[in-house]
Amino acid sequence: MDYTNYMADRVKTMKGSAIREMFKRMADPEIISLAGGNPASELFPGEELSKIAGKILMTNPTLALQYGTTDGYPKMKDCARARAEKVNSITENDEIIIMTGANQGIDLTAKALLNKGDKVIVESPSFIGSLNAFRTYECSLVGVRVDADGMNMDELEEKLKSEDGVKFIYTIPTFQNPTGCTMSLEKRKRMIELANKYDVLILEDNPYGDLRFSGEDVPTLKSMDTEGRVIYAGSFSKILSPGMRLGYIIAPAPLCEKIEVLKQVNDVHTPMLTQLMCVEFMKKYDIDKYIEKNRELYGKKCAAMVDAMEKYFPKGKVKWVVPEGGIFLWCECPTITDITPIVDKCLEKKVAIVPGSNFATDIFAPSNMFRLNYSSATIEKITEGIRRLGEVLTENL
Amino acid sequence: MDYTNYMADRVKTMKGSAIREMFKRMADPEIISLAGGNPASELFPGEELSKIAGKILMTNPTLALQYGTTDGYPKMKDCARARAEKVNSITENDEIIIMTGANQGIDLTAKALLNKGDKVIVESPSFIGSLNAFRTYECSLVGVRVDADGMNMDELEEKLKSEDGVKFIYTIPTFQNPTGCTMSLEKRKRMIELANKYDVLILEDNPYGDLRFSGEDVPTLKSMDTEGRVIYAGSFSKILSPGMRLGYIIAPAPLCEKIEVLKQVNDVHTPMLTQLMCVEFMKKYDIDKYIEKNRELYGKKCAAMVDAMEKYFPKGKVKWVVPEGGIFLWCECPTITDITPIVDKCLEKKVAIVPGSNFATDIFAPSNMFRLNYSSATIEKITEGIRRLGEVLTENL
Repeated sequence: MDYTNYMADRVKTMKGSAIREMFKRMADPEIISLAGGNPASELFPGEELSKIAGKILMTNPTLALQYGTTDGYPKMKDCARARAEKVNSITENDEIIIMTGANQGIDLTAKALLNKGDKVIVESPSFIGSLNAFRTYECSLVGVRVDADGMNMDELEEKLKSEDGVKFIYTIPTFQNPTGCTMSLEKRKRMIELANKYDVLILEDNPYGDLRFSGEDVPTLKSMDTEGRVIYAGSFSKILSPGMRLGYIIAPAPLCEKIEVLKQVNDVHTPMLTQLMCVEFMKKYDIDKYIEKNRELYGKKCAAMVDAMEKYFPKGKVKWVVPEGGIFLWCECPTITDITPIVDKCLEKKVAIVPGSNFATDIFAPSNMFRLNYSSATIEKITEGIRRLGEVLTENL
Repeated sequence: MDYTNYMADRVKTMKGSAIREMFKRMADPEIISLAGGNPASELFPGEELSKIAGKILMTNPTLALQYGTTDGYPKMKDCARARAEKVNSITENDEIIIMTGANQGIDLTAKALLNKGDKVIVESPSFIGSLNAFRTYECSLVGVRVDADGMNMDELEEKLKSEDGVKFIYTIPTFQNPTGCTMSLEKRKRMIELANKYDVLILEDNPYGDLRFSGEDVPTLKSMDTEGRVIYAGSFSKILSPGMRLGYIIAPAPLCEKIEVLKQVNDVHTPMLTQLMCVEFMKKYDIDKYIEKNRELYGKKCAAMVDAMEKYFPKGKVKWVVPEGGIFLWCECPTITDITPIVDKCLEKKVAIVPGSNFATDIFAPSNMFRLNYSSATIEKITEGIRRLGEVLTENL
C-alpha cells in the first residue's frame, strides 16, 4: 500500500534531522563524536536525583503518578520563574508554561503563530530542531547571516522591509547553535527597535545562556523588550539534564493561553515526576553551584579543543571564532565549497562532525562549514578527535 | 498590545477543554468529582516505582539523564510491543514510536495526515482531547452516532459515501470515552470493510481495553486489519500511571517515519527516566496482575455507582447503559434538551459532572447528556456524589 496520498503536505518531503540519522551510523564505539549536542554526563547529579526520586515516589506517589495540570506543576513554574528572574526575562504581563523540553515550547509557539505561507526570519545557520519545527507549519524561512557578534542587523532590516508576512524573528542570541556566537548588546538593542518598527514578534531561545566561561554576560532580548514582543524559551536540558525533558515558555498572557491549549492537545502535561525532581533538586541544592561546575568544565574542554585545533589543523585553511560559552564551535574552510566529502572521510577515520548544510535554511545548498561540540567528549577524546580531524583536513584542504 | 493579529487562524477561536477549566472551579475540597478521567490512585505502585527510580538513577545516571532517541528507548519499545502483541495489534509491516502519552501520538498522527479542509470521521460524542487536537489542523469533524454497541455503521457508510476528503476514522472502540460503550465484533468487521471499500485509514485509540470487568474481550480493529489501514494508539496511563505520560503509536513503517520526524521537532524524545521505570516495572513485576487489581476495583466502583443511581435517580427520567469496563458511564435525560443548568446546580450541591456538549463535534449545540467517572473517587464518595446528583436531578427533571 502506498501511503503518500494519505500524508499531509507538510510531511511529504520532510526528513529527520541528519544529525540524528548520523548517530545511527555511529554505533561503532571507536568513533569519537564531536557531532552531538549532549551536555557533559560526567557531572550529572545521579546520586542526588536518585535519592530525590526515591523519596518523592515513596512519600507522595499520587502527586507523582496521577495526572497534572497542563501549564505545569505550580512549584515547577516557580523554579522556571526563578531562572527567568535571574536574567530579568519575565514581566507581570507574562505567563509561564512548563514544557517537555524547550523544543516543545518552540514547536507549539510556532503552531500558535504560523499560518501556511507566513514567514519566519531566522539566523542562517540556526538550530535544525527549530527550523524543522517551523517547516511543519508550511511557513517560509528567511535566513539572515550570523556575524561573529550575532545576526547581521542591516540584513535583518533589509529583510523586514522587503518581505511581507513575517510573523516573528527566531534567534538564539547567546552562544548560538551552531555558531557559538553571541549577539552584542548594541545588536540586541537594534533588534528590539526593529521588531517594534516593523511590528513583528521575537522568539528568543536561550538554552545556553547560563554556560558562560569567559567574557561578560549580555542582557537577554526579553529583558530589553519594551512592547511585549519577546517570547522567551528556557531550558533545564543544559543546566540539569536533557533526558528529563524540562523547559518552559514565557510569553504575554494572551499568547500563553493559546499555547497552553496546544500543549493540552499535545501531551496533556509534562510528566510529573521529572517536574517534582527538578523542584526538589533546586530546593535542596544550589543549582548555580552545579552550573558553575559545568561552566568550568566546558571552559576547559573548549580550551583543549582550541589548543588541539591550533596544533593539528592545517595552518590558514580553517577559520573559527572562539566561543565565550555554550557547547559549540563553528569552523569554515574558505578554500572549498562543500564539506560533505570530508565529513564522510572523517567517519572513516572514526571522528564525527556535522556538516554546515544541516543548519541552513536551504538544506540542499553546499556548505564549507562544520560544527564541533566540546561538551560531550572527555578532554582526551576531544584532543584525539581533533587530531584525526586535522589529519583529514590536512589531506583534503 | 493586541496579539490577535499575530495568532495563527487555527488557535483564534480555540478554547481549552471545558473539563479542565471546570477543575479550576473545583478547588473546594468538599466537591465530589465524578467529572475527571483519573485512574484510581489508591493502587499506584508508588513503593515499587520508588525503589526502581532510585536504583536506575544510582546505577545508570547517564542513561536516565542524557538525551535519548526519538522513537523511544529500545527496551521500552519492547514493552509496548509486548502489550500490543497480547491483542494481536502489531504486524511485521508496523513500527512503534514511544510517545509522551498516547495523546501525543494522536496529535502527531493527525499532524502527519491532515491538510486544512480534510475531514475526520469521529464518534459523536468522543474524547475532547483528540477532537481538539484534530481541530488544530483546521480539518472538519464529521460525527457519527454511537449506539450501545458502538458507532452506527449505516450512518458511517452514509458519511463515507457523501463526504469528500475523509482522511481517517477516529474511534475508541472499547469502553469509549465518554459513552463507556464497546463496539461489537460485527461492527468492527464492518468498519474494516468500509475503510477498505472507501479507501480511508482508521486511528484506533485503545487506552481502556485492558480494563474489562465483565463480558468477553472483543478483538481490536488493528488485529482485523487486512490492508494496513489501522494506526493503533496504546497507553500506559490507565494501566500504570497517567502522570508518567507513556503511550505509543503503532503504524505502518512509512507513516511512522513521518510521525517520528514530527515527534523529533516536538519534544525530541519522551523523558528517559519514566521509560526506564516502566521497563523495570514490567521486568520485575507482573503488570497483568496489577491491571487485574485495577479491573476488580473498577468493577466494584462501577457497581456501586449503578446501585446508587438506581436508588437516588428519579425513576424513568435518566437512561444509561451499564459499561463492561473502562472508567466512564454516560447518562441521558430525555425529558430535557440542555443539561447545563443542572450541571451548575450540581456544583452548588458540591458534586461535579461533565455536560455532554463537551464531547460533541458541535460544542455549541445543547446536550441533555452527561458523563460520570467511577475510577477516581472512593466507593463512599461515589455513593454520596450520586446521592447529591440524584437530589438535583429529582428537583429539576
